[in-house]
Amino acid sequence: MKNASDRSKVGILGGGQLGRMLLQAAANYHVETFVLENDPECPAAHLCNHFTKGDIKDFNTVYNFGKGLDAITIEIENVNIEALEKLEAEGVKVFPKPSVLRIIKNKILQKQYYKEHQVPTADFKITNHFAEITEMESFLPAVHKLGEGGYDGRGVQIIRSKADIEKGFDAPSVLEKMVDIDKEIAIIIAINEKGATAIYPPVAMIFDPNLNMLDYQLCPADLSKQTLWKVEAVALAVIRNFKSPGIFAVEMFVDRTGDVFVNETAPRVHNSGHHTIEAHYSSQFDMLWRLMLGYPLGNTEFILPSVMVNIVGADGYSGDVIYEGLEEVLKIENAFVHLYGKKQTKPGRKMGHVTILSAEKQDLLHKSNKIKNNLVVKA
Amino acid sequence: MKNASDRSKVGILGGGQLGRMLLQAAANYHVETFVLENDPECPAAHLCNHFTKGDIKDFNTVYNFGKGLDAITIEIENVNIEALEKLEAEGVKVFPKPSVLRIIKNKILQKQYYKEHQVPTADFKITNHFAEITEMESFLPAVHKLGEGGYDGRGVQIIRSKADIEKGFDAPSVLEKMVDIDKEIAIIIAINEKGATAIYPPVAMIFDPNLNMLDYQLCPADLSKQTLWKVEAVALAVIRNFKSPGIFAVEMFVDRTGDVFVNETAPRVHNSGHHTIEAHYSSQFDMLWRLMLGYPLGNTEFILPSVMVNIVGADGYSGDVIYEGLEEVLKIENAFVHLYGKKQTKPGRKMGHVTILSAEKQDLLHKSNKIKNNLVVKA
Repeated sequence: MKNASDRSKVGILGGGQLGRMLLQAAANYHVETFVLENDPECPAAHLCNHFTKGDIKDFNTVYNFGKGLDAITIEIENVNIEALEKLEAEGVKVFPKPSVLRIIKNKILQKQYYKEHQVPTADFKITNHFAEITEMESFLPAVHKLGEGGYDGRGVQIIRSKADIEKGFDAPSVLEKMVDIDKEIAIIIAINEKGATAIYPPVAMIFDPNLNMLDYQLCPADLSKQTLWKVEAVALAVIRNFKSPGIFAVEMFVDRTGDVFVNETAPRVHNSGHHTIEAHYSSQFDMLWRLMLGYPLGNTEFILPSVMVNIVGADGYSGDVIYEGLEEVLKIENAFVHLYGKKQTKPGRKMGHVTILSAEKQDLLHKSNKIKNNLVVKA
Repeated sequence: MKNASDRSKVGILGGGQLGRMLLQAAANYHVETFVLENDPECPAAHLCNHFTKGDIKDFNTVYNFGKGLDAITIEIENVNIEALEKLEAEGVKVFPKPSVLRIIKNKILQKQYYKEHQVPTADFKITNHFAEITEMESFLPAVHKLGEGGYDGRGVQIIRSKADIEKGFDAPSVLEKMVDIDKEIAIIIAINEKGATAIYPPVAMIFDPNLNMLDYQLCPADLSKQTLWKVEAVALAVIRNFKSPGIFAVEMFVDRTGDVFVNETAPRVHNSGHHTIEAHYSSQFDMLWRLMLGYPLGNTEFILPSVMVNIVGADGYSGDVIYEGLEEVLKIENAFVHLYGKKQTKPGRKMGHVTILSAEKQDLLHKSNKIKNNLVVKA
């Protein structure tokens, strides 16, 4: 708890929508904000006290940006970890610790971490070259995931049978046995420097099978008490061994027998926590500031149930963005519109989201369909 | 409704906490923001796309700032109105219209406006010189209000009897007959360019008698149906004749017989609407963006009842701010803390606010007392 009159200086690596929403929340607190990002027109650039144009993957750039800050966080995993390690050694608090980033950034290390710490996750094999997949026919159906560099559905291939094997990656990857998914669940969980945790209610994520992009998500997820306890216990098990403060999004599958498997973990604020801005007392963004500023953890309870709908660029349109049907969406009662301020759209690009609050699940689903039927992001 | 890919360019005159919260809300929309303010360290300076250092009371400064913008708004009435008139004539949309600012900025014209449009308000006399008050002994007890330049309790004197007359102003002022106040009520009301209105539930304001500063406010105010209808009708009557889009805060007294009197109106986002950020579907800040961007009006309903507590600088402390007891406040469940980022505190200065949500009035009052007993803004 900083009680002195000096404001904490906190930096963010990356200036996308997560940074933007983090900075909207920062303006509730006594903090001086810094953003490092290559694009000076990015969604977060104009919402910080100090913007630095630069490459978050470059050692010197990240190190020079972070020197002299009190704390630093990320909005994307693909950053220069060595620079963060040096900053950490010099006393800058890093959320999450670079050691966690090393594990999570690489899907092979991430799977090995789950295995080592008895966190339930789908069976897997490591493949270093394309040829190795061909020998794993008996392991199919499976999902092939590139070790590093995947994002938003890129770097993931479903290999159901021998015929799909050609889609596999010729680089270090994980081949994960396919789970007979009943539900996809995400839990946002926070842990502070003293090890105290705060867990948000699980959300159910519904994906568009074509884009592999989140279509909408419902909070709280409709789970039996037993499954709820299981997913909460699993989320806690995931973060406990990281030994790092931070906010984490743990994505899980629940199969038809009620077994829970961790799909993957993001060590940062996450798309699956956007609804917390309006639907919960302390949002995921507020929570991360509380962690970084040494404040008490926030209240993760929901005020009302919610649905969150991503607004993504429509197929076939690239260029200067036009929001068609926005007026209809803004007319919907209890809908909170967030546009990320991106000037250019392209197919599948995350351009914004809408959160709807209602005590009635049918009302939530009806309104989220209305949004999807009315809003088209064109160019 | 702007459907083209060009973002609207919107300017704000003034960069205090109202500008700050307006800009937090702006980041939900497709808009390019501009702020004009003399202090580059002001609460809003780092949250806009373009900051201009300059005097909001200077004609050329305001005119040059506003040229080329699509719309412009204010966070304080004391701005150069002539420049806004010229900008309006040249096609910049001004929220509210400069003609409204002329009326409201001057308490004499404001009172005359109420009288002219049969808006109930306390009986008053206009005084141009100190000597005139001495002749109005039979009109006491009354409140003497400076025509121009008052703010946050400055420029207001209570004159109960002959002995207090010496406190009166020797400048154009209004002497207002004192109302036997039962309740102080404020209503935030929005009106768009087509004349459609959206009205927020009334809040009850409780003042600190020493500072004449808002102590806390409760939403919704505890009113009989009859009084509720009356205050809503009066708020509508106030803004109807302005013939201007914008957001307005109408402050009213309800006396012990249930009669309603307009105290004053602010033609902008207002302290009495801060709770709408978390407690209502569309906040006053969101609502103003909707007006300025030509979007549909938002939903003014509350999600949960709320109390808002102002955080003001403690007596006897001036200098670099220290928030003592902030940790205790941040531990309170369902409390939303907003600090305005001001580096310097002084007695009575508005440094932040806290909004508490709860379905239970006792819980709201208990928690707001806890805040007032724990938090001290020192230097």
